[in-house]
Amino acid sequence: MALFRKDQRSIHKMSAFSAHLVETFTAPTNIAVIKYWGKNDLKLNTPMNSSSSITLDQADLHTITSIAASQEIKTDRMWLNGNEFEINGRLKTCLEEIRKIAGDRKDASGNIIVNKEDWHKYKVHIVSINTFPTGAGLASSAAGLACFVSTLAKLYCAQEQYPGHLTAIARQGSGSASRSMFGGFVEWQKGERADAHDSIAIQRADENYWPEMRAVICVVSDKEKDTSSTSGMETSRKTSTLLQHRASVVVQGRIEAMEKAFKAKDFDTFGRLTMQDSNQFHAVCMDTYPPIFYMNDISKAIIRLCTVINAHYADEEGRGIKAAYTFDAGPNAVIYCLEQDAPLIYAIMARYFPAPREAEAYTNKPNLYQSVTADADLIPAALVEKLNKCGRVPTAGDVKFIFYTKSGPGPIEQPISEAILDVATGMPIDVSHKHRRMKIV
Amino acid sequence: MALFRKDQRSIHKMSAFSAHLVETFTAPTNIAVIKYWGKNDLKLNTPMNSSSSITLDQADLHTITSIAASQEIKTDRMWLNGNEFEINGRLKTCLEEIRKIAGDRKDASGNIIVNKEDWHKYKVHIVSINTFPTGAGLASSAAGLACFVSTLAKLYCAQEQYPGHLTAIARQGSGSASRSMFGGFVEWQKGERADAHDSIAIQRADENYWPEMRAVICVVSDKEKDTSSTSGMETSRKTSTLLQHRASVVVQGRIEAMEKAFKAKDFDTFGRLTMQDSNQFHAVCMDTYPPIFYMNDISKAIIRLCTVINAHYADEEGRGIKAAYTFDAGPNAVIYCLEQDAPLIYAIMARYFPAPREAEAYTNKPNLYQSVTADADLIPAALVEKLNKCGRVPTAGDVKFIFYTKSGPGPIEQPISEAILDVATGMPIDVSHKHRRMKIV
Repeated sequence: MALFRKDQRSIHKMSAFSAHLVETFTAPTNIAVIKYWGKNDLKLNTPMNSSSSITLDQADLHTITSIAASQEIKTDRMWLNGNEFEINGRLKTCLEEIRKIAGDRKDASGNIIVNKEDWHKYKVHIVSINTFPTGAGLASSAAGLACFVSTLAKLYCAQEQYPGHLTAIARQGSGSASRSMFGGFVEWQKGERADAHDSIAIQRADENYWPEMRAVICVVSDKEKDTSSTSGMETSRKTSTLLQHRASVVVQGRIEAMEKAFKAKDFDTFGRLTMQDSNQFHAVCMDTYPPIFYMNDISKAIIRLCTVINAHYADEEGRGIKAAYTFDAGPNAVIYCLEQDAPLIYAIMARYFPAPREAEAYTNKPNLYQSVTADADLIPAALVEKLNKCGRVPTAGDVKFIFYTKSGPGPIEQPISEAILDVATGMPIDVSHKHRRMKIV
Repeated sequence: MALFRKDQRSIHKMSAFSAHLVETFTAPTNIAVIKYWGKNDLKLNTPMNSSSSITLDQADLHTITSIAASQEIKTDRMWLNGNEFEINGRLKTCLEEIRKIAGDRKDASGNIIVNKEDWHKYKVHIVSINTFPTGAGLASSAAGLACFVSTLAKLYCAQEQYPGHLTAIARQGSGSASRSMFGGFVEWQKGERADAHDSIAIQRADENYWPEMRAVICVVSDKEKDTSSTSGMETSRKTSTLLQHRASVVVQGRIEAMEKAFKAKDFDTFGRLTMQDSNQFHAVCMDTYPPIFYMNDISKAIIRLCTVINAHYADEEGRGIKAAYTFDAGPNAVIYCLEQDAPLIYAIMARYFPAPREAEAYTNKPNLYQSVTADADLIPAALVEKLNKCGRVPTAGDVKFIFYTKSGPGPIEQPISEAILDVATGMPIDVSHKHRRMKIV
């Protein structure tokens, strides 16, 4: 696990007067392939079913968090994307849970700097930035909470009391954050215990296991206001007769089949299950009363294109799945694919979803984008013909941004030079030149 | 049952040389409140679960069918909406099934005109017109097949071999047609027998039982090509893990609860179940692989408005449901409501879905439409405020036509004067002045 690397560069040398203890981490988001929907216990934030996901590469999307602690800080404070917020709710729970398992903090030579009994004299300043477009439905809370828990645990020298303890704390912050505590292919197991100590994330394969895995993410324009996932889950639990069946009968088999497919690098099964489980999650949302809609007509157009792509290659080459879409609680599409097919998928999305006219940037990989869109032979003519038939008329701005990314590692400790707060004052500093937030029209 | 009324006006007086036996019926459509999705047996056209529906008023939407029989007609032929079609598939099955149970045909005095043994010498001309907008997803096949079976059964003096035999024949033509064989509130029971003789429609309450029932139907503009319901059902049966659960566990309880609610005139329960079952049907479609989408963003906007209306009156007056939407295999909304609330619902839909600019007609009730849209006080200001907040921006043409209708009777026998074929020649005649097809942009 990345959390407790031996690299101690980030421990700021203490001085008697005003310096702070500072830790900094970056953390990734993750996109589930078997979806989490429905809580078993609201307080413990446990799920009705296990879920699994792929952690995305922090080089493309990340949260960075610095936390400073000192006896001079009198109140816990937090700044997110430059704005101060009150620390409450699930974030406060995480803070309290980490403080409960704080350990002695030592310097590089092994001398105790803070005795664990003395931590109650310390308060913290938390500064966090995410490079995600906010509210774009790209699971920024997963990255945010995983980053917060990782940074805080390091700062407080937290001692896990059971395997996966930190992932369980992240779970209390945000369910999907538990999965962002690892890279690669991760399962968040539902757990059976009343204290939820087994409702933890487990890495099933690391980010180097299947290095060909790619993701093309279409950030979809959306005029409608989403239902928050917490309230949506509760309404589904209370009103959907299908959710109970899904959670108790359908999912466990899928979790196991998905792990097997991933480990066998069987993209056909992996992709089909990914799409089927996305479909079923949105089916449960629709079975809710009143129904919850996360996908819109643009999302559906992306599904139709993927269906045509897969059918084409099944017919032409006997290959099952090339493009495996999945949608979280929003209209954005994440299309998993293999490296060899990724330029094709990227090019098709670029073709049928042209950039908004007023967009400054439309992708995180402008060079690749330019090369795939300039390659007239990349999409076979026979496929174009089929794609054109499925009714999608390219309209600028239906998709606001396309990310091209891959699987990546869990939270990464950063050197003190990367801190996004002032080590002397404990206050946020401007790092917008380093951690530029995606600007999306 | 309306089929065998004693009214014999329609028996054309036979003459020795060239006249035909002619019968004419009109028949209604119906819109399910507990949905039929998934076939048990493709040949018998039996369903995975029972369904129930409300038959709509033929004054607003109907099919009219005339059938002529004579020994001079040498081939069975059919004209639908003015165009000749080959008689095959399910229609041919219905024709064969009715012929199997043909009886002696007598004149008004009881003299046999055609001995049942002689029917094999007779062929038929079938002429049918429906006033529905074609392909608008308003279950025109239900009306069409019910009309065909009713007319043919009368012509051939068909003798039912078991209760509901004619509805079973209609079922073989089109599943939902079985329910259009009656007015009011109708159940198509799944049945258990291998020969499907118990997979029949049963009238649970006639059209006068709950005369306050109204329906506001929004015909929604749709650019995407629908999946046909027959192929969609098959794909769902093969791939949706939720459909089996719905059909075997969920629906029967809903069928019973719905009948109870209808008989108790409990609109709250009736409406909530109607919406929940529509939601679940579309959930199953989404759980299909590849997923099937019948609703679009306009459909969803209608759902959101209904949800706001219901929430408003629940808060203001403690009333549960005022507007109960349901969607068949297409984007059109049917909103069931009570007479007292119908003008309000009609006015709200008119307000948020203005007529297409090029529309010649926008509704079947222009006077009522004018009066509700001119009444500035009909929609309370507090409700308008909430409706405006749900993100719907009135856009001309998103809805192409609004029907305002109510529950009505089953197939109705028509006098010979209403025949839509020439009694002497057996050929179609132009009746477009009488049975104007809705012209929708």
